[in-house]
Amino acid sequence: MTYCIGLLLNDGLVMMADTRTNAGVDNFSSYKKLHTLADSSKRQIFAVTSGSLSMSQTVISLIQEGLPAGDGSELSRTIGSATSMFRVAQMVGEAVQIANNTVGSALEAINLSSSVSLLLGGRIGDQPPALFQIYSAGNFIECSVEAPFLQIGETKYGKPILDRGIAMDMPLHEAVKVAFLSFDSAMRSNLGVARPLDLMVMPRAKGSAVLTRRIEPDDDYFNALSLRWSLLLHEATRAIPNPPFMDEKGAARS
Amino acid sequence: MTYCIGLLLNDGLVMMADTRTNAGVDNFSSYKKLHTLADSSKRQIFAVTSGSLSMSQTVISLIQEGLPAGDGSELSRTIGSATSMFRVAQMVGEAVQIANNTVGSALEAINLSSSVSLLLGGRIGDQPPALFQIYSAGNFIECSVEAPFLQIGETKYGKPILDRGIAMDMPLHEAVKVAFLSFDSAMRSNLGVARPLDLMVMPRAKGSAVLTRRIEPDDDYFNALSLRWSLLLHEATRAIPNPPFMDEKGAARS
Repeated sequence: MTYCIGLLLNDGLVMMADTRTNAGVDNFSSYKKLHTLADSSKRQIFAVTSGSLSMSQTVISLIQEGLPAGDGSELSRTIGSATSMFRVAQMVGEAVQIANNTVGSALEAINLSSSVSLLLGGRIGDQPPALFQIYSAGNFIECSVEAPFLQIGETKYGKPILDRGIAMDMPLHEAVKVAFLSFDSAMRSNLGVARPLDLMVMPRAKGSAVLTRRIEPDDDYFNALSLRWSLLLHEATRAIPNPPFMDEKGAARS
Repeated sequence: MTYCIGLLLNDGLVMMADTRTNAGVDNFSSYKKLHTLADSSKRQIFAVTSGSLSMSQTVISLIQEGLPAGDGSELSRTIGSATSMFRVAQMVGEAVQIANNTVGSALEAINLSSSVSLLLGGRIGDQPPALFQIYSAGNFIECSVEAPFLQIGETKYGKPILDRGIAMDMPLHEAVKVAFLSFDSAMRSNLGVARPLDLMVMPRAKGSAVLTRRIEPDDDYFNALSLRWSLLLHEATRAIPNPPFMDEKGAARS
């Protein structure tokens, strides 16, 4: 399993991924799922991946090494020459389709799932940051202001806190806290999502540096956040008035 | 879709179900999924159902009208004569298997899902309350102290708050609040779960009456709880210290 999220806010772009991979509970491992596709002053592009590990590694390698030129030449097309994030998303979708036709077909032939999906985020030159979700068929959607976050993988446990906690106009450090809480929920409820987590923060302001950070299993800040959140939820529950129709012993109150 | 939960605590038993049924977003309706199977001074038995509506109605009707005697006689076996909740769970499992072999087979023949599952809770005579989950094959498990709640249907959105908020030793009115918050999370994230909700509270104390209540879509208490919870979550998020490795603008802090 996997859990990845992307947030596109007024102040910038946040992406986060766990690192757990597994083929059954008796066969799990840790792989980086947040990939740096480009990181120069003019072009910062990142992707997080979910699905079959062999498929997602194939897709990432195809993007990094370049797609076939299509004219029979040896030259390959890379995202280094793409003029917009939309063009990059098209190339990533194309890489997914190539992986589907090669590795995917082989997996399907032995009835193994070959599904792969990605979140793609970044910016090129002076263009604003953009965030895309690329589906397993290679089609994609772009994140918009009506729903400022996208998720892939084991999305449900961590969605309620995003639904309530993420707003377009929140500061990036608040958004990172809510993203951590969303991961904490997913990790408590599903063994298939686990630390280390990988984080990328891209402030919208031009010229600002991208922050990347790994949150290890023993990260003090994350542990304190998880503990504090439990205490705060208990306090919040107690602060809500009791149901007016029953007494403390569960008996009906008229 | 559906969402149902059962809580078996020191102070008693709580069961809750939504009422939304749907066959696609263009065809939804409201059906009661919390069923009273017995409600006398010596025997109080309730079930909540998830899955194909025709299947769950068949299961409930089989239980209410009685299972075939098996000896060719006209007499049928009912839960009114069962001597323990385990025996009742066996009969409900048998009803699921009968439904599988009749309605279920017909549905499978046209490639429609015929899955049905139930939570069964109640008590007989002076025995303590018990809670069971009956799976789609008719097999079942009993709720135990290690995990004091069971869920069926659209379980993931509402699980994190139960994981953190439900404890064996909490009072029933606190448990009902947490259960409402779990439903609120599920309803906000999935249109297939919706009010009215049906609630049953069975205090453990002998001789105490069972409380049943419907929470309508315009229920003032539930609306206030949902609104208050949003505010409390925002406060709680702000109360957590900011990530030490980044500043307010998302830049790395050394």
